[in-house]
Amino acid sequence: MNLSPLPQIMLEPLVRAALLEDLGRAGDITTEAVVPADHRATVVLAARQPGVVAGLDLAALAFRLIDPAIDIKVARPDGSVLVAGDVIATLSGPARGLLTAERVALNFLCHLSGIATATAGIVEAVRSHKASIVCTRKTTPGLRALEKYAVRAGGGSNHRFGLDDAVLIKDNHIAIAGGVKQAIERAKANVGHLVKIEVEVDTLEQLDEVLALGVDAVLLDNMTPETLARAVKMVGGQAITEASGRVNPTTAPDIAASGVDLISVGWVTHSAPILDIGLDTAP
Amino acid sequence: MNLSPLPQIMLEPLVRAALLEDLGRAGDITTEAVVPADHRATVVLAARQPGVVAGLDLAALAFRLIDPAIDIKVARPDGSVLVAGDVIATLSGPARGLLTAERVALNFLCHLSGIATATAGIVEAVRSHKASIVCTRKTTPGLRALEKYAVRAGGGSNHRFGLDDAVLIKDNHIAIAGGVKQAIERAKANVGHLVKIEVEVDTLEQLDEVLALGVDAVLLDNMTPETLARAVKMVGGQAITEASGRVNPTTAPDIAASGVDLISVGWVTHSAPILDIGLDTAP
Amino acid sequence: MNLSPLPQIMLEPLVRAALLEDLGRAGDITTEAVVPADHRATVVLAARQPGVVAGLDLAALAFRLIDPAIDIKVARPDGSVLVAGDVIATLSGPARGLLTAERVALNFLCHLSGIATATAGIVEAVRSHKASIVCTRKTTPGLRALEKYAVRAGGGSNHRFGLDDAVLIKDNHIAIAGGVKQAIERAKANVGHLVKIEVEVDTLEQLDEVLALGVDAVLLDNMTPETLARAVKMVGGQAITEASGRVNPTTAPDIAASGVDLISVGWVTHSAPILDIGLDTAP
Amino acid sequence: MNLSPLPQIMLEPLVRAALLEDLGRAGDITTEAVVPADHRATVVLAARQPGVVAGLDLAALAFRLIDPAIDIKVARPDGSVLVAGDVIATLSGPARGLLTAERVALNFLCHLSGIATATAGIVEAVRSHKASIVCTRKTTPGLRALEKYAVRAGGGSNHRFGLDDAVLIKDNHIAIAGGVKQAIERAKANVGHLVKIEVEVDTLEQLDEVLALGVDAVLLDNMTPETLARAVKMVGGQAITEASGRVNPTTAPDIAASGVDLISVGWVTHSAPILDIGLDTAP
Amino acid sequence: MNLSPLPQIMLEPLVRAALLEDLGRAGDITTEAVVPADHRATVVLAARQPGVVAGLDLAALAFRLIDPAIDIKVARPDGSVLVAGDVIATLSGPARGLLTAERVALNFLCHLSGIATATAGIVEAVRSHKASIVCTRKTTPGLRALEKYAVRAGGGSNHRFGLDDAVLIKDNHIAIAGGVKQAIERAKANVGHLVKIEVEVDTLEQLDEVLALGVDAVLLDNMTPETLARAVKMVGGQAITEASGRVNPTTAPDIAASGVDLISVGWVTHSAPILDIGLDTAP
Amino acid sequence: MNLSPLPQIMLEPLVRAALLEDLGRAGDITTEAVVPADHRATVVLAARQPGVVAGLDLAALAFRLIDPAIDIKVARPDGSVLVAGDVIATLSGPARGLLTAERVALNFLCHLSGIATATAGIVEAVRSHKASIVCTRKTTPGLRALEKYAVRAGGGSNHRFGLDDAVLIKDNHIAIAGGVKQAIERAKANVGHLVKIEVEVDTLEQLDEVLALGVDAVLLDNMTPETLARAVKMVGGQAITEASGRVNPTTAPDIAASGVDLISVGWVTHSAPILDIGLDTAP
Repeated sequence: MNLSPLPQIMLEPLVRAALLEDLGRAGDITTEAVVPADHRATVVLAARQPGVVAGLDLAALAFRLIDPAIDIKVARPDGSVLVAGDVIATLSGPARGLLTAERVALNFLCHLSGIATATAGIVEAVRSHKASIVCTRKTTPGLRALEKYAVRAGGGSNHRFGLDDAVLIKDNHIAIAGGVKQAIERAKANVGHLVKIEVEVDTLEQLDEVLALGVDAVLLDNMTPETLARAVKMVGGQAITEASGRVNPTTAPDIAASGVDLISVGWVTHSAPILDIGLDTAP
Repeated sequence: MNLSPLPQIMLEPLVRAALLEDLGRAGDITTEAVVPADHRATVVLAARQPGVVAGLDLAALAFRLIDPAIDIKVARPDGSVLVAGDVIATLSGPARGLLTAERVALNFLCHLSGIATATAGIVEAVRSHKASIVCTRKTTPGLRALEKYAVRAGGGSNHRFGLDDAVLIKDNHIAIAGGVKQAIERAKANVGHLVKIEVEVDTLEQLDEVLALGVDAVLLDNMTPETLARAVKMVGGQAITEASGRVNPTTAPDIAASGVDLISVGWVTHSAPILDIGLDTAP
Repeated sequence: MNLSPLPQIMLEPLVRAALLEDLGRAGDITTEAVVPADHRATVVLAARQPGVVAGLDLAALAFRLIDPAIDIKVARPDGSVLVAGDVIATLSGPARGLLTAERVALNFLCHLSGIATATAGIVEAVRSHKASIVCTRKTTPGLRALEKYAVRAGGGSNHRFGLDDAVLIKDNHIAIAGGVKQAIERAKANVGHLVKIEVEVDTLEQLDEVLALGVDAVLLDNMTPETLARAVKMVGGQAITEASGRVNPTTAPDIAASGVDLISVGWVTHSAPILDIGLDTAP
Repeated sequence: MNLSPLPQIMLEPLVRAALLEDLGRAGDITTEAVVPADHRATVVLAARQPGVVAGLDLAALAFRLIDPAIDIKVARPDGSVLVAGDVIATLSGPARGLLTAERVALNFLCHLSGIATATAGIVEAVRSHKASIVCTRKTTPGLRALEKYAVRAGGGSNHRFGLDDAVLIKDNHIAIAGGVKQAIERAKANVGHLVKIEVEVDTLEQLDEVLALGVDAVLLDNMTPETLARAVKMVGGQAITEASGRVNPTTAPDIAASGVDLISVGWVTHSAPILDIGLDTAP
Repeated sequence: MNLSPLPQIMLEPLVRAALLEDLGRAGDITTEAVVPADHRATVVLAARQPGVVAGLDLAALAFRLIDPAIDIKVARPDGSVLVAGDVIATLSGPARGLLTAERVALNFLCHLSGIATATAGIVEAVRSHKASIVCTRKTTPGLRALEKYAVRAGGGSNHRFGLDDAVLIKDNHIAIAGGVKQAIERAKANVGHLVKIEVEVDTLEQLDEVLALGVDAVLLDNMTPETLARAVKMVGGQAITEASGRVNPTTAPDIAASGVDLISVGWVTHSAPILDIGLDTAP
Repeated sequence: MNLSPLPQIMLEPLVRAALLEDLGRAGDITTEAVVPADHRATVVLAARQPGVVAGLDLAALAFRLIDPAIDIKVARPDGSVLVAGDVIATLSGPARGLLTAERVALNFLCHLSGIATATAGIVEAVRSHKASIVCTRKTTPGLRALEKYAVRAGGGSNHRFGLDDAVLIKDNHIAIAGGVKQAIERAKANVGHLVKIEVEVDTLEQLDEVLALGVDAVLLDNMTPETLARAVKMVGGQAITEASGRVNPTTAPDIAASGVDLISVGWVTHSAPILDIGLDTAP
């Protein structure tokens, strides 16, 4: 999967909001009091630990929205694998702007790089298998498009972006619908021709029933690697197979070995620690 | 510190944005296809692991904005300590609304409870000392007020909310100003009478210089517990003392034992994993 | 396809904006000058011509946002087939609010009912065939979700809601990619597992090439009914077939007779005249 | 009437909203997957049918907001009369941006050009008479300023822009006020000196009564050409005369021949089909 | 002129913005720390000086948006003449909400009542003449609709609400157009039938020229009362006459005695001091 | 105190809103009708009376947002002392843009310069004393950051920017808390380490009680100069002393002579008349 940048029109409202959140009503009172307006500086964004970078467009926008005179040269674009100490970008311009935008720029960059790094870790763990790693809708409110992008930067793929871009029938839906047959039939009768239908199954019996009805994908939830392997065999290419539940870099290889097409992981978006990136004086 | 709820006027724009992000342009196509409009259900928000809850007002708002007919009874309010299995709240109403709002409600609740839980862990670690745990400006863009609130729910306290509500002179400021003396003098000359001034010091020599100039607080950055103890002694009550750098539940007790007033931790807001809370059918 | 209402949270910003657009800076100066504040009235929304109604939630919201005291009773909900003179809803409350909100309410209702009516006309024309009528992205800027909903109210189905919810490879993409093979391969390598891929083909030769590569759907553009029939035969169930180009109630039956699965029509969203609905004094 | 462009500050929010509506949460997944980032192209906006163009500033803004590197040369500015095949503008720049912005640009351009074209048709029909063609408040919600502009581009003039910029007393107002005399007196007592007052009359008796009270304009609703002619004579220059009801290019000449000053038409804004304009590879 | 309330839909965004401006990121930290959540209070809004009240809907909305449990009883509605000590409204409910919303509510109420009071003062000064007092576009950015409303509450009338609701040709326009004749002719050729045209004149010679061309109103700028009287005579009812320049309660009677229809004053909106209204414990 | 400009990102939304408020739905109909599109002009912003200028960035932004081709040269930056006739800035560019943006630019500039001028007047009155002049939260809704900036431009300092950036315990808080001791203890227990606490006292007895409890600042409300002097003596440097109540240029010197650190004045933000600045043709 290549990594196209998100259109700036999608990023700008988020960066503006984050800057205004930090500036409050009086702006950066420390910098304005202490740093002369004409002082210029050159600084670098540098990795403090190994990982994968994501979010440079947001960081750059934070600096440029505070001061368009800040110049930014990117050395390692989004998706790059970093070792500790790597210089990611060099910025030069008025020192006030560099200091005022620093925290917001880093908050975006460290958060998204953390997601990319976590994703890359688990992608690496299943590298010898065909399974793709996909993220979920368990994202930070307001940042879903960014976090999905960071997953792609880390080598992962994206599951649904929202409630509206695919049908995913879960156990609660089935229970209320009065059975998986009713649920699937209603879904087929009601959605557009470009919308895929995926159904969650917890047992091989359910899988059998679902396959007979015909769906685009099955979500094999919380199955052991052995059961997963049997499920993949049963499916036999009739549907995309997705495994979920208790996925981490340790468990992932066994899950992937079952032959599933996809492994979905919530924690890369909801619980990944940041990647530590700092703003240092240029050497 | 008691825990006052944030005014709903501050929460509503964030919850609306998160719901619209998830609904996209077509809404919850699965639920609308599969679940009858008149089906009613009762569900519970239940803890899947121990922790501290925060964010119930946001979760409740997510449900009510999707369907005002949903009734919510809170059993364990924000700040409560949970054991796995605890029912946090019971919701009843139209099943469609419960399913449509579920993910957004949980995304807020699990994220903020994760922060509260991480904070509570480190607060507990220093319980026998006087030090307060404070958070930083390393927050998720757009969610600072919520995350600062979650820190309070976990028993922590808040450092600056933004660039504008206190002066914090860091090493970069000092370098550009041409020395700590110039930096502090400029700050004192330029800020209002209700604004406190804090200065970062990395060595005891710097601390000596800063104390002679008079400031409200000193940020003792990356010092060993031994150096911190000497620093606290040097300060002798002339300023608030804050320790920062490499703080975690293991290192925190020794840091706190130095006698500092405050220990600031970035990771409770930027890297805390979520607290796993689920929506279950009411028993 | 059943017709679920759009969540009010999606409608409210559009109705608020439309009301503010009409109120301007001084409000309804005619009504405020001429109509006593305590005058109450009962009025009906009545069809002036036959058609299908859509948009009642928006109309109701317009009245309620101007005056929550206005009571609305819906007689013929969205999707109902109307004959001229049919009462769609009865409203009673303060006369000022009824008059002030009237135009905005009707602008939404007549526009969306026009789309539903146009859709129903062409749906009816192909009723004896299996083809579904689907709309396009040729919608009025800002109103896409509403117009797609109106198409459903008229018995149609929805194609893509935006650039992001399915891949649709058109002639320009193919030309730039250097061939349909390259285009399809790149698409398959880059999109998520729940995203379908559709490719536009203009000739049976292209169709042959595309089918060999395997896609979810083919858009058969501007073909004669005879060519369409041959195309459908060639496809033989390997992909969804969609016909487009010069579709109107007269040409639609022949197109549908070709056996295509879908017929897409732009004009129901971009060129449908309004359905004439008026606000009359209750009889 | 000359045709001044609307200030970009009025257009930008609408174009941004339309682009975000189309980009959704994942952007243009087809183009990003299929089209190389460095591919450049030159394309033209070309008329597929005769008409009058309007909306080029919006189309240009759509392209530039997606990629500022896109260069736009306008050959036929807003208000120009087009024959089929006419090149309206030439665009060159990165192919991705051209393809991503295409639909939004065309949605604005075709919609507004459709209104301009419809207006020009009826303006032409009454060319030999003094009557001006004016539009109404029956506009698409959110787009009133744009649609009023398109009417001007087509040679028409504008009636009220909203509820607040003139008094228009209709039959409902009169009924509630208890008579036309009371309605007009209240209006005169309550509105500013730069606000004109127009009153709807359905019969010559009403006209007589209104003229005696003195108003700026009379709206002669649904009268035959003969009655209109008598009305114009009765008015004798004491007020502006406006005819409305069942106006189309066929009926308009007879209505205009009555000597009225203005003919108002709702359908040019609420029911005009689009003008078919396409984006073609430059020859 | 009666005084209709502005629709709440116009007020709410302004009150929400003002509350969020005051709450900042942490809310009312004093009240939340000091006042128990269950403490209830009853308070009154009371005039500290004589004047005219305006803005009660905004004040009430500020309290209700902070806490819907606050009950408000209005004793003296907008437009009422107050003496010092008058109770304007009584509020009861949770003490926290009353204290948190107090400042925002008063900021709206005192500002608008200040405008109403200033207007009433000059209206009173010309009471024995026919002249109406009108305000200008010299308003506080963002608050024009509110301030124009406050002028009406004080017994004044409103001039243009913006650049778009009437033509006002000033000296700069005339100079650039190459003469008043060209300016007026261009205006007449370009604006709608419900738009009035007013022209600024500085001398009687200019007035003569303008009257010959025919306009709706003349703005007699900075003339002495004697010259104004001659101007009114020259106009002889052919146009509305408006005097402007150096108008205050002292000069206004002489200006009004000239017989002009309108006297426009900028200072009532741009320089009126607030009316002192306070929130007191209910007696 | 130096005067750093507010970041443009904080100004732009306010200037955009003000321009749209003035442009309405049809824009500047006078200028567009009367002034040729290619006419260029050079104009100056000139002081009509002596004062202190503030708000040039907002004025410049108003012109540039209407037409980026307008060039602005500032002769007297914010904070400059002006005499009548002083040229503040020279603008050249398309005449239409200059005329269209004029009123909005002046509304910001005159309002903020009025505040700066009022502040400078009272700052001058206490020049021989150590007291600083500080403003309050009695600001125009929506414009607080701008008005606080204007106070700084006039030589004043800023008190709290909102409810969240310092604790200010007033008489109502004390009454509800059940005494000043309870109020102060609760505040100390609940707020962060960088938040200062100020308490209002009306008598020397209260002052004595408050000093014993230890606070950062005392607000000495409505005391005579003599009592203030005694209060300052009692405080003896243990807290910052602030005087408030009935402060104007006449009373200020005696108040300042008491030796207080700060004098707070509401009227400079809520009741200052504008500074008269006009747009004139360049000489």
